[in-house]
Amino acid sequence: MFDAVTMDRSKNSAFLQVGSVKVSDPFWGAFMERIRTKVIPYQWEALNDRVPGAEPSYSMRNFKLAAELTHPELDYGVPRDTGHGGRVFQDSDFAKWIEAASYSLIWHPDPDLEKLLDDAIDIVCNAQQSDGYLNTYYINTGLDKRFTNLKDNHELYCFGHFLEAAIAYYEATGKRKLLDALIRYAKCIDRLIGPEEGKLHGYPGHEIAEMALVRLYAITKDEKHLKLAKYFIDQRGQQPLFFEEETARNGNTFRWKDSHFQYQYYQAGKPVRDQHIAEGHAVRAVYLYSGMADIARLTGDKELLEACNDLWNNIVNRQMYITGGIGQSEYGESFTFDYDLPNDTVYAETCASIGLAFFARRMASIAPRGIYGDVMEKTLFNGIISGISLDGTSFFYVNPLEAFPESCRKDRRMSRVEITRQKWFGCACCPPNLARILASLGGYVHSVGDNTLYTHLFMGSEAKCKIAGADLSVKIKTKYPWEGKVDIRFEMTGRPRFTYGFRIPGWCQTYTVSLNGVETPCRVENGFGLIDREWKGGDTISLDLEMPVRFVRANPRVRANTGKIAVMRGPVVYCLEEADNGPGLYRIHVSDPLDPADPRDPADSGEPAGIKVRHEDNFLQGVTTIAFTGKREKDWPEDALYGTAKPVLEDKQLLFIPYYAWANRDKGEMTVWINS
Amino acid sequence: MFDAVTMDRSKNSAFLQVGSVKVSDPFWGAFMERIRTKVIPYQWEALNDRVPGAEPSYSMRNFKLAAELTHPELDYGVPRDTGHGGRVFQDSDFAKWIEAASYSLIWHPDPDLEKLLDDAIDIVCNAQQSDGYLNTYYINTGLDKRFTNLKDNHELYCFGHFLEAAIAYYEATGKRKLLDALIRYAKCIDRLIGPEEGKLHGYPGHEIAEMALVRLYAITKDEKHLKLAKYFIDQRGQQPLFFEEETARNGNTFRWKDSHFQYQYYQAGKPVRDQHIAEGHAVRAVYLYSGMADIARLTGDKELLEACNDLWNNIVNRQMYITGGIGQSEYGESFTFDYDLPNDTVYAETCASIGLAFFARRMASIAPRGIYGDVMEKTLFNGIISGISLDGTSFFYVNPLEAFPESCRKDRRMSRVEITRQKWFGCACCPPNLARILASLGGYVHSVGDNTLYTHLFMGSEAKCKIAGADLSVKIKTKYPWEGKVDIRFEMTGRPRFTYGFRIPGWCQTYTVSLNGVETPCRVENGFGLIDREWKGGDTISLDLEMPVRFVRANPRVRANTGKIAVMRGPVVYCLEEADNGPGLYRIHVSDPLDPADPRDPADSGEPAGIKVRHEDNFLQGVTTIAFTGKREKDWPEDALYGTAKPVLEDKQLLFIPYYAWANRDKGEMTVWINS
Repeated sequence: MFDAVTMDRSKNSAFLQVGSVKVSDPFWGAFMERIRTKVIPYQWEALNDRVPGAEPSYSMRNFKLAAELTHPELDYGVPRDTGHGGRVFQDSDFAKWIEAASYSLIWHPDPDLEKLLDDAIDIVCNAQQSDGYLNTYYINTGLDKRFTNLKDNHELYCFGHFLEAAIAYYEATGKRKLLDALIRYAKCIDRLIGPEEGKLHGYPGHEIAEMALVRLYAITKDEKHLKLAKYFIDQRGQQPLFFEEETARNGNTFRWKDSHFQYQYYQAGKPVRDQHIAEGHAVRAVYLYSGMADIARLTGDKELLEACNDLWNNIVNRQMYITGGIGQSEYGESFTFDYDLPNDTVYAETCASIGLAFFARRMASIAPRGIYGDVMEKTLFNGIISGISLDGTSFFYVNPLEAFPESCRKDRRMSRVEITRQKWFGCACCPPNLARILASLGGYVHSVGDNTLYTHLFMGSEAKCKIAGADLSVKIKTKYPWEGKVDIRFEMTGRPRFTYGFRIPGWCQTYTVSLNGVETPCRVENGFGLIDREWKGGDTISLDLEMPVRFVRANPRVRANTGKIAVMRGPVVYCLEEADNGPGLYRIHVSDPLDPADPRDPADSGEPAGIKVRHEDNFLQGVTTIAFTGKREKDWPEDALYGTAKPVLEDKQLLFIPYYAWANRDKGEMTVWINS
Repeated sequence: MFDAVTMDRSKNSAFLQVGSVKVSDPFWGAFMERIRTKVIPYQWEALNDRVPGAEPSYSMRNFKLAAELTHPELDYGVPRDTGHGGRVFQDSDFAKWIEAASYSLIWHPDPDLEKLLDDAIDIVCNAQQSDGYLNTYYINTGLDKRFTNLKDNHELYCFGHFLEAAIAYYEATGKRKLLDALIRYAKCIDRLIGPEEGKLHGYPGHEIAEMALVRLYAITKDEKHLKLAKYFIDQRGQQPLFFEEETARNGNTFRWKDSHFQYQYYQAGKPVRDQHIAEGHAVRAVYLYSGMADIARLTGDKELLEACNDLWNNIVNRQMYITGGIGQSEYGESFTFDYDLPNDTVYAETCASIGLAFFARRMASIAPRGIYGDVMEKTLFNGIISGISLDGTSFFYVNPLEAFPESCRKDRRMSRVEITRQKWFGCACCPPNLARILASLGGYVHSVGDNTLYTHLFMGSEAKCKIAGADLSVKIKTKYPWEGKVDIRFEMTGRPRFTYGFRIPGWCQTYTVSLNGVETPCRVENGFGLIDREWKGGDTISLDLEMPVRFVRANPRVRANTGKIAVMRGPVVYCLEEADNGPGLYRIHVSDPLDPADPRDPADSGEPAGIKVRHEDNFLQGVTTIAFTGKREKDWPEDALYGTAKPVLEDKQLLFIPYYAWANRDKGEMTVWINS
């Protein structure tokens, strides 16, 4: 369908950053506003252990304790008798919050929030050691042990997250304090880890530092930062295996030694260029692949790009839920194997979908392909925002595609599957990760490269960029994903000639493109419609993407979905919920009303007869619902488990809601895939 | 369908014991011969840790060590530097082997085997303490701790199994040495446990002693033995909870305190008469229910019988696999909840199906109902013998209804599901349990009561009993389960008048009954055909049970089987195996050829057109196979996970084999339930 991505640096494009794209989308605007007004303040309380009934975070307390150890003259009021709290990676939750709050400040200046950040950053910086080291776990529990367990103790992961936070805060405010602290920490790491003799030949046990260092390099242009990121990528999985040596040397445990994972849990069982199937811990994996794509783009490394292509294709064509969820198994929060996509014992961690969006954005930066935007919007409209309640105060870590309440209580295979979003988690990676991606959505809309502006996502927004020597403003107006009409209006200085490329979603079979109100043909390449012309201020491109209800099937190799369909409309995956459809969702059957043998209403232009698509402003904070008549298996008259009677079906009115909006009402069953 | 079982002691009947029924069945005879010539010798080697590549049992070594401690003048050659080995319940494996070997001796005298048993029993008896105590774990590790953890340390479980062994050996040989030792052990327990002040008010953490004591009572007529069994039943789950007190008093751990089980893991969360849903560890549960049924029968306890009825109905109508497998979850090897019957992450432990057969036999003893024999034969022909390889040397602990090899390796939810039978297990309860039930099958055929002889199972055999004052011999000839013709011939002294009742299997819709070659009507009651007459020697009843291929569906409440069918013929459940049908069994669809809308061959009397039923003597040691044409979903032309194309089906010739015979060839997929 698409040309394979090969390394052609003239195809590279750079995404416009959050600061260049002001989002004013009716759909996403509401989510972002919720992040700003609810989630960021709520998470600040959570990070300070002030949310009643939620598991404590210890994040701020740990930093205060560390700062107090470093600057004993300062008093942060942390009780002296308490030690370091929470998991070894607790710093990262705080870093993600700084990052999210920083993005929020860009378009919503807020002196109170900025003051809160400044004060918190002062504490963080006061915790920094004289050699630049900055990790509360080791500062509070014993610096002699630092860098003795890169494999499991998340030091470089926390470093990476703090670096992302520092960059975001710098971009939002221009303030360098945290950035400089992180540059010093990067130097400290550089002194200890690297290819030179006497240094540790190590790399992160949980990836993210790779992409963070690439972002730092973009700011500093300091080759050292790129070099360290590249070293982390290149050294990973090389023999002798660092993690194996480290484990032996320091007497660390190796949790996966009896598992099929071995070091592939960490994507470190073989060199990254030899990795072609997504394996191991899913969040780690897509964070690594994102870093690999960054380095492939910056260095033109063809072999690395090939690995990225293969890993991408493996995920998207073999291991991704229809919601954009990835990581099928709770065991190791991991990928399992091709076409293994159980709906009920699924993991599909919110963070993993977020990481997949990172990977997609970076692949799109190497070469524009509609599939990357398709996956970005698939994750965003489905598997990512399913992770947060509509009121912004509770969260899913695991995003099931089928939920049966009694199983979650009584079937330990589903011990991590919740049917109610939680206020917080002991391992709270997901909530602040949601905040940072949703607060930075503007950075996923457009990219510029090769005299071309590409629009990857349709999101009401106003962007500013330079192209063909001109200052261009791009204003998008749309009611996406509920309606397929997208208006893109340019304002600019002069009359520059450039190519405008807009993604034609993979789900869309029929569309029209108009220029200034006149339907116009356009060249289509790799999922992008392209218009090459001399533009002028006021030029408006209108896309009209037909958005019929679709009955989607899974590849026949997907065991879990044989004989089932999922309902989609545009990029949105729908589900049945008990609140609307009663219990026993597994007993519902739909015949495919799109079947040509089925009667259609000839007067109706789009939807097949009987399907009612309705937008309801006051339902689930505004959703388009889908309703039609299906069938439901009737109960058997006798109390028996087995018999030869054929199923008796009765008509059943079905109401489908967007998947992301489930579990916002009474607890109950939910299913995405329905018997056909 | 059947009248509810109420307490009417005139309906009680007693099963003819192994010693009264000589099995000569073409089907079961081969299994029993395998038990005698392969399994019993093989397991003796296993119990002596002499099977290369198998996990050591330590059973004999533990007894030798214990005997050496008790009689230090004797030298059993156990290495002095080795301590007690294996699990806390290792004695029970040895007890089950003694029991199986004893049954085998009844119809196959074997001086070498008897000598082996005598010698082993000498060692066991030499391990007995002067007060009667006899458990190697505590003898070898410290007697001061005995009876401090009835909840988890299986002391009373090992006692129960040894008591069953002692009874079987006594019945087989008339030798009382082991029986007397066990009677002394029972006295020792009686002194320590019971309702009297100063005794422990306890009961077994793993049940079985209840039914063993009832068997002992049948031999000794000593009310003490019945009283102790009844106390174990009555005291279970009474407040204050003994297990809770014991845990607190002795500082024991309570593994299930954060689980939904709580003390119901042990069926001890409430008094047994308040238990109406099968909960907790499945083997424990059905062993308890068997003991409850025994006590209800012996004491006429209506309330206890009501609990038994409810528990029976709950299992059979809500929680039993079509194979007779029970215990859906690996977690706690437990029942989960009604209609929760996953096929792939199933547990269905071999021992649990065996226990269900025990329960069925005991319920049938209270009142004859066809359903009890139906369930006995369902477990025996399917979920029990699936636990042993056709060559008798390897075993399944878990009996899945769907196996996908890659899942077993990479999906930890299936970490206990094997696709290859194992030589032995660290926890080896199943192999010797298989041996003891298969060696005692004769005891499941007939029962006598109320001037009626009931035949529950159709099995080539010759039985002897007394009825209506006459000595009756009952000879069954049949090729069951492959053919539905069963001939029952009586020989007797005199011309007694009695009722003969034969089970009409629940699966059988059409049958004829002949008496001495002449078709005869008969009264049908609760699943039994009844003929009441004055009989004479040579009288022959012939049943002709029509045995068409059946497409069976699960109750619509069973989530796992919506839209699926299973193929059965007679009592035998069939499956598809990769060896015959290639990979991708989950992509196979069958339309129901029994559908009246489907064309049938008018020349054919029984099977619908296209279905080929063939007996193959040289395939899988002799099985009847079923073949017909189904459909298989074709691969998609493109490498994608989701799309709107309809499934394209191609014809696919399918070969079904009996479920019990799977996994005897190349490793591969298997499934019982098939998309319809």
